[in-house]
Amino acid sequence: MKNEKTITVALDGTGGDNVDARSVASAVRFACVLNPSLKVLVFGNQSLKLALAAEKFDQNSYEFISASECIPQDEEPRKVLEGYKNSAMRKAIEAVRDNKADVIVSSGGTGPLVALSRHILGVIEGQRPALCARIPAGANKFSFMVDLGANAISNSKDLLSFAKLGHCAYKAFYNESAPRVCVLNVGKERNKGSLLVKEARDLIEQDNNLNCCGFIEADKLFTDEADVIVTDGFTGNVALKSAEGVASAFLNAPGIKRFFSKLARPDWLIPWQYNGSLLLGVNGLVIKSHASAGKEAVAVALVEAARCASMNLVDKIKEELKKS
Amino acid sequence: MKNEKTITVALDGTGGDNVDARSVASAVRFACVLNPSLKVLVFGNQSLKLALAAEKFDQNSYEFISASECIPQDEEPRKVLEGYKNSAMRKAIEAVRDNKADVIVSSGGTGPLVALSRHILGVIEGQRPALCARIPAGANKFSFMVDLGANAISNSKDLLSFAKLGHCAYKAFYNESAPRVCVLNVGKERNKGSLLVKEARDLIEQDNNLNCCGFIEADKLFTDEADVIVTDGFTGNVALKSAEGVASAFLNAPGIKRFFSKLARPDWLIPWQYNGSLLLGVNGLVIKSHASAGKEAVAVALVEAARCASMNLVDKIKEELKKS
Repeated sequence: MKNEKTITVALDGTGGDNVDARSVASAVRFACVLNPSLKVLVFGNQSLKLALAAEKFDQNSYEFISASECIPQDEEPRKVLEGYKNSAMRKAIEAVRDNKADVIVSSGGTGPLVALSRHILGVIEGQRPALCARIPAGANKFSFMVDLGANAISNSKDLLSFAKLGHCAYKAFYNESAPRVCVLNVGKERNKGSLLVKEARDLIEQDNNLNCCGFIEADKLFTDEADVIVTDGFTGNVALKSAEGVASAFLNAPGIKRFFSKLARPDWLIPWQYNGSLLLGVNGLVIKSHASAGKEAVAVALVEAARCASMNLVDKIKEELKKS
Repeated sequence: MKNEKTITVALDGTGGDNVDARSVASAVRFACVLNPSLKVLVFGNQSLKLALAAEKFDQNSYEFISASECIPQDEEPRKVLEGYKNSAMRKAIEAVRDNKADVIVSSGGTGPLVALSRHILGVIEGQRPALCARIPAGANKFSFMVDLGANAISNSKDLLSFAKLGHCAYKAFYNESAPRVCVLNVGKERNKGSLLVKEARDLIEQDNNLNCCGFIEADKLFTDEADVIVTDGFTGNVALKSAEGVASAFLNAPGIKRFFSKLARPDWLIPWQYNGSLLLGVNGLVIKSHASAGKEAVAVALVEAARCASMNLVDKIKEELKKS
């Protein structure tokens, strides 16, 4: 299905919190307007089919494929792998495996998405798949933070793998020869923190392909002090959600303060501008959209997915990994 | 030294980042103005003595005690315990042990402060000392978050101890009969997260004296969803610093946005209004002030320390613990 011009994105149209078919359909239309060379394979139920038909846009820019089952956000991995054969998430991932799509986008649960992607697409040899968020680090700047919760428990070798994957992805994105890799910790000093982060730092330093820049503290996450921030999935998830919580306390201040906060917010802190985490380390391109993302955010995730596909991200990561 | 009226606060005048003697002296004066029944024992070096003398306020409201040694923020616990016999931090903690002060306040390193406090004051039987921050949760509302980094590694029994200590402290502060205790996790569902938090939740639920309200996610930290938030010191530290990082990205936005952000900020998010974490679980009252706190924040920590002392916090915690 690939050719020079068209990028095909498979969309799991069932995931997310309180999914609204009209909102998903509207996101598809918005994405196709933003990127006319985009083709979206939409997997979902009948109400989504109707909602798409009701949107006024080029009907050639998408294809609807019926897949009515929806996997609950917190379904057990075993049940996800054994059941849900006709789920939109599974069908969309299979489309990537079968070369019918270049990338899959889902707002479904992290657990099911990671389990199914690993199972269907396979893992890049020697790597530990992890979610990588691009977090704002100033105007037009992003840092990559890995892992955001693909793994509940990690050891130091896993963190080394996160560092490698983040390094490769950042390099592919920004053509930066030696991205600064830092490990998230409670202090910058070498003797601070848990055994996990100390061991991980040692391993990353010993790897000659990586530019290890030591530890970084959580209050420096949004300051462009690191290009790649390595952390276990539990800590990464907490760090990012805590940041979201404060931002939302600002933005939901009562009365007139809410008005000022909109004026005050740095443009680069507008969340939907950077929706879409990459699942790195699997043999295919998988993008996790925020579960509670609005239609603009889902549209951005679709467009970003196409951009990642057009730069052949997975091939570039594999190539770069061979050097180490 | 105790009597009905005067509360004596021992201040480690050497801790903190880039300590400025004039700033410390000014904080002491500010605190004594805010609370005239306060008496401060100031431990520090000659320049602090001179700075205090230069401040124009009632010289009876403080006593200067020479203790010139300063313990580096990240000094190893072993060296802290064996050396630094004339350090301001050690002398100030000893003043609490010897009943010369009701409470000690320090902006020094967390590691040294926790190690020395445990060593000099002793640990409450069966408990695991932990840092407890009062974090804003709306106008005039606070939640207690335990641990903020007193321990680099914790097991589920430690987290149960944090829950008990937080419960007792919250009860003493707010006279709330059954504070809502939640465990910080990456999801609310019972099957989410690490083994540590799952085990901790089970232990807390099994304790009939605690009102366990399940898991809480980091984006809900500042929403008054819990009275006591239980977490390991590593995660707690990351969660709070990440929140500080975003707040500071807002407040340091360039140009006119900075002006709007000051107007936008909810009053309860002004950081120096709630400076001062409690070290719970030791046989004496220990307050950790933020290392980079300004003079207003240190003054607030001194006044808050006096308030904790006047409510006999440690005795109340011990009494409450006996019930379990």
